[in-house]
Order: sequence, then structure tokens, then C-alpha cells
Amino acid sequence: MSTFRVELKKVVDDSYDISVGYELQGQLIDDIRSGMVGKIKKFAVITDSIVEGLYARPIYDALKEAGYQADMFVFPEGEKSKTREVKAMIEDEMLAKGYRRDCCIIAIGGGVVTDLAGFVAGTYGRGVPFINYATTLLAAADASVGGKTAVDTPLATNLIGLFNQPVKVYLDIATWKTLPKRQIISGLAETIKHACLADKEFFDYIDEHMDEILELDKNACEHIAHENCAIKYQVVMKDERESGLREVLNLGHTVGRAIETESGYELMHGEAVSIGLVAEVKLANRLDLLSTDEMNAVISLLKKAGLPVSIPEYIDRESLVKRLYTDKKVRDGKLRFVLQDSIGSIKEFEPGVFAKPVEESLARDIIMEM
Amino acid sequence: MSTFRVELKKVVDDSYDISVGYELQGQLIDDIRSGMVGKIKKFAVITDSIVEGLYARPIYDALKEAGYQADMFVFPEGEKSKTREVKAMIEDEMLAKGYRRDCCIIAIGGGVVTDLAGFVAGTYGRGVPFINYATTLLAAADASVGGKTAVDTPLATNLIGLFNQPVKVYLDIATWKTLPKRQIISGLAETIKHACLADKEFFDYIDEHMDEILELDKNACEHIAHENCAIKYQVVMKDERESGLREVLNLGHTVGRAIETESGYELMHGEAVSIGLVAEVKLANRLDLLSTDEMNAVISLLKKAGLPVSIPEYIDRESLVKRLYTDKKVRDGKLRFVLQDSIGSIKEFEPGVFAKPVEESLARDIIMEM
Repeated sequence: MSTFRVELKKVVDDSYDISVGYELQGQLIDDIRSGMVGKIKKFAVITDSIVEGLYARPIYDALKEAGYQADMFVFPEGEKSKTREVKAMIEDEMLAKGYRRDCCIIAIGGGVVTDLAGFVAGTYGRGVPFINYATTLLAAADASVGGKTAVDTPLATNLIGLFNQPVKVYLDIATWKTLPKRQIISGLAETIKHACLADKEFFDYIDEHMDEILELDKNACEHIAHENCAIKYQVVMKDERESGLREVLNLGHTVGRAIETESGYELMHGEAVSIGLVAEVKLANRLDLLSTDEMNAVISLLKKAGLPVSIPEYIDRESLVKRLYTDKKVRDGKLRFVLQDSIGSIKEFEPGVFAKPVEESLARDIIMEM
Repeated sequence: MSTFRVELKKVVDDSYDISVGYELQGQLIDDIRSGMVGKIKKFAVITDSIVEGLYARPIYDALKEAGYQADMFVFPEGEKSKTREVKAMIEDEMLAKGYRRDCCIIAIGGGVVTDLAGFVAGTYGRGVPFINYATTLLAAADASVGGKTAVDTPLATNLIGLFNQPVKVYLDIATWKTLPKRQIISGLAETIKHACLADKEFFDYIDEHMDEILELDKNACEHIAHENCAIKYQVVMKDERESGLREVLNLGHTVGRAIETESGYELMHGEAVSIGLVAEVKLANRLDLLSTDEMNAVISLLKKAGLPVSIPEYIDRESLVKRLYTDKKVRDGKLRFVLQDSIGSIKEFEPGVFAKPVEESLARDIIMEM
């Protein structure tokens, strides 16, 4: 018997910039011309059926005009498209069009597009570079920092995927104007989650500026886009692989993701997260971690944003309880929750441990009450 | 407009050991008990329908006996199973059995199993650790170093996948005894390829010890397993992402992979690579890079091993030429080949450039002659 040692220690630099601003299409083309992705001349523009006509086609046209090879890969909009099957369809179209490893993927759209396209990029030819051009508040809050990409499967959301960092992210606030009101509001849930877990001052800012935010005032939007990045960055930087601290970003998601799936995606992600945040402040309050005043302040801010704060009638409570076990935080068959101990702070149960095992019966009680 | 910088520079250590020896099942269990994968207690054993009864079940039983949770995930043997669909099936079974991120995958089998299971591990819960227990000569030659994992699609082989390093690799030479003769011979093609591209002395060793190798003499097998790792390691270490030097490992694969696909996987991978090696020494000879004597020596060693050295009658030559364009080395629509300039050496066309653009007409000529 002999042992052969494979030494693979190295420095990896996945650093990137996020541009936050208005109408960044021109800047994207300039960055590519200036060599942002080296000598690559082929661009696969991945987008959904709504963003296609609004923002993807102008960028596609500008790429062609600048002399690059580009093709559009468009899938039907919505979380229902975030599947292995749609990923395979895009891959097959790219293969059929002759895309190999010397290409770059440009994801243009919201969280579904960036999650899916980032995952395609991560496994296409064992990895090609990708650029995120985010056109929703949710993508600004959720998809711009962290490198998480994934698809959903019938048995779990976001469980098949990988960590993959983009070359650059563009948060184009001008695109928010064309979002349906419901989607703006849904996107606010992740922003409120960030405030809840890390920044009381930001929580108060959102509370005080809710009208401006909902009217898409430029300054308010730039501020929340920036704060979203800053909070997520602080958490992700300290723990890129989600072993401990990063779990705090799961606030509201244990119940939220389960409700999203159980609703058959009738609920938007942010709406489901809002209900999940309510469930988890109620749980934190029941466990004597969070005061009743603070619990009510969170619920009231979610209401002020126009987000749902109770579980819709049509959702079967028992199925929902079962669905909780598909959560990634489940360990040794036990449910685990991330819980606030005040607004702007997550309870650290042990050093580096931010998720607490909770009895199913208690989780069921909270769900039954909602 | 503002810019937010995400700093993600870090040291990554993916180093691992390869154990080469006889009957390593006991060592695997000991290593797990000693904490090789930390506190993980759940093991997904992924294998194929042939290896299941031979080597996977005993390891599965030993895991259960040692008090671990384990399940077997078995797919039909053969390259035809290396698909996105089989990957999805394994994922769904793992999800249904409650596997989350706190598990480890053990791949037991040949190259197809380790390629597929390594890819499953890379995207399951955005990455769980995996162990390779290699039971074929081909896996020893091809899958033990390099971290390449992938599946095939109708339009290309190995183009969807990722780089994913195992926690440890076991090369159990005792398992080679149960391999069909055809598979042993097929596995030798990658070994001969390694000798051709890096080591004239090893080429001569194989030539002189062919009988012992084919009879699975222990010393000869340990020697070739070790040399395979050593050569691949030298190449991979210098260039993990296959941007330049690593392309030398593609010797014989431009034509080889295309033939493998065109044969509808009637040809085993190594058989196809053998024919590919012949095509590429002929090409190198035609381009005045390789002497006729050396070309003949390579063809003769492949013959001595019992490998095919001409393209089967049933393969359509024109389809084969078209299929060459699905190769990952294709750049700007041009075919590119890795070529030897002697036995044990690959031509470096420019510093760091080991693949040469070749006219389609020349590639077609060679194919038509074979």
C-alpha cells in the first residue's frame, strides 16, 4: 500500500464590483470593451420572457453593434422556471448554437434569472464567467452578494446549485420602474429581513421612508440597494460557506421557503419570506428571546410595506409542518430556526451557532395560530 | 452611481491523499472513524448496477455496522447513465431519503460513477464532501487526479460539470480482478496516453511488461497506478483550470470523444481514445512533428494491448468530422489538436499553448484513411 499526496493549496481571488445606479447598460458595454472578461467575444444573454423586451434586447443589440457574437436565451418568467429542466434546455440551446468554454454568460433579470444563469455558468464547460445585470429590488437584496446559485426541485427549493461568484454585478435602479407593484413590495421583504438581522437604524430608515421607497424615489432606492449589499457583504465575508454566521441570512426562510413551495408558487418569494418573518418573531417571542413590542414592530413594518403577515387559508397546515423538514438547516432530523433577540440582532446560541433546534410541536403551534 | 467592492480573496486548500493498494475497504471505514469527514454521520453510497454487489454493498454494510446512517443509490452501469437525468434521479432519491447538507457522498466504481457522483456532490446543497473509491484501471488513470466531474448530453460529452476535489481517493487494485478483460484493456488506453505525453521510460515499461499488466500482476499494477497519478498530478498541478498545459491531457481525445459519441457508446471510452491516439499520431506525422518510427511505435503498443487502432466500419465519417466541433478546445470555430513531437513529449506551439489549430480538410483526410 502506498499513499500519493495531491497538494492543491492556492490563493483564490473571486473579488468583484457592484455598480449601483441608473441605466447602466452603456457602462456594461464599456466594461466589456475595456477587457472585463478578457478576450471573450461570445456572450450568452440569459433572461426571462418579461425582461427580454424591456432590458435584455437593448443590451443584446448593443453587444452585436459593438461587434460581439451574442445570442438570447429566454425562458418563461417566474420561480416555476427555476428548474433543472430549464437549465438543461438553456444548455442544449447553447450547445446547439456552438457555445463552448470561450464564452461569457450575462444574466439580465431578477433573482430567478441570476440564480439560474449563475448555475448554468458554473457548470457549462465546467465553468464560464458570468455577469449579473439585476433588474429587481429582490435581486439587489438577495442575488448580488453571496454567490449563491440554484434551482428548485419538486422536493426542495434551492437545494441543487453551487457557489459561483460573478465577474461583476450591475444594480440598475431605473429598471425598478417597470416592476409590478406586487414585485416591488415582495422585494422589500428581503430588505426588511436584512434590517431585522443586522441594523436597527436601517429598520427605522425603512419605517420612516416607506412612502418614498414605494414611490421609487431615487435617493431612497440607492440607499436601500447600498445597505442591502453592505449587510449581506458583512455576513457573507465572514462566512462564505454558510457554516455558521451565514445562517443568519436564513431569518424568515425556514417557514418562508416551505410556504412558498406549499403555495405552489402562488406566493412570491418575498411574500412567503414576510410570512416566515412573522412566524419567526412569534417563535422568538414565545421562547422569551424577543419582546412583544419588538415582535409587533416587525409585523407592523411588514404590514406598512403591504406584505402579507398571515398564512393564506388555502395552505394546509399539516403539509406545511412536514415541508419544514426540507429546510437545509435541518440537522439530525431536527428543525432549526434562526431567531432575533432584538431588532437588528440575531441570537448567537453558542459561539458561531445561530440556529436553534426547535420542537416540531412548538413550530406547529405557531403555524396553527397564523 | 456608486461602486461597492466585494473582496473575496482567500487561501483554498483542496489537497487530498490517494491510497493505492489491495482491499482498502477496511482502511476507508477506519479513516471515516478517525474523522476524515469531521462529524458527518450520513453517507450516500453512489454506485452502478455491477459494482453494487461486488464492492459497494460490503462497504455499505460496514458503514451500517460501524453505526453510520447509509443508503445505496444505484444506477444502471455504463456511460449511457452519465446524464443529467440520472443525476436528477439520484438527487431526488437523496432528497426523498432526507439527505441534506450534512452528508458525505462515497462514489464506488469506475470513471462513470466517480464523474457522476462527484458532480452530484458538487451541487447537492451547493456542495457536500465526497470520497472516491475507484474500482477500475480507467478510474485510476483518469478520475483520481484533476477534480473533473461531468455528465454527457445529447450534443456533447463531459461539457456539463464542474471541478470538484474529493476528500480522499482509494485505488483498490484488488477490484481489477473482477473487471471484464475488455474493460482492463480499455483502461490501458489512458495509461498509454499518459506515457505518450510525458514519459518515454514509462512507455517502454508498459511495452516490456504488457503480459504482466494484462495478467494483473500486483507489482506491475501498482507501478502503473502510481505512474498514472504522478503524470496526471504533474500536469494538473501546474494548471488546474485547463487553460494551457492541462490541455495536453486531451491527447487522443479530440477524435476519441467524437468517435465515442458517434458509436452510440458501443465503443468504450478507452477504445475510442485509442483510435483517437492513432488519429493524432498520424496527424502529428503528417505535420512533420512526429517521426514515422515513433508513430508506428505508438500504434504498435496500442495493438499489443489489444486496443482498436482503426475507425469501425459502422461510423459515418462525415458525421464524425462534424462531431469534432463539439470539442471543448474548439476556439473561434476552429478545430484544435494536441500533438506529440516525440514519445513522452507534447509539442508546445507557443509558450503555454499546447493545442494547434488544424484545417478541417486535413482532419477529414486522416479520418477517411482510417
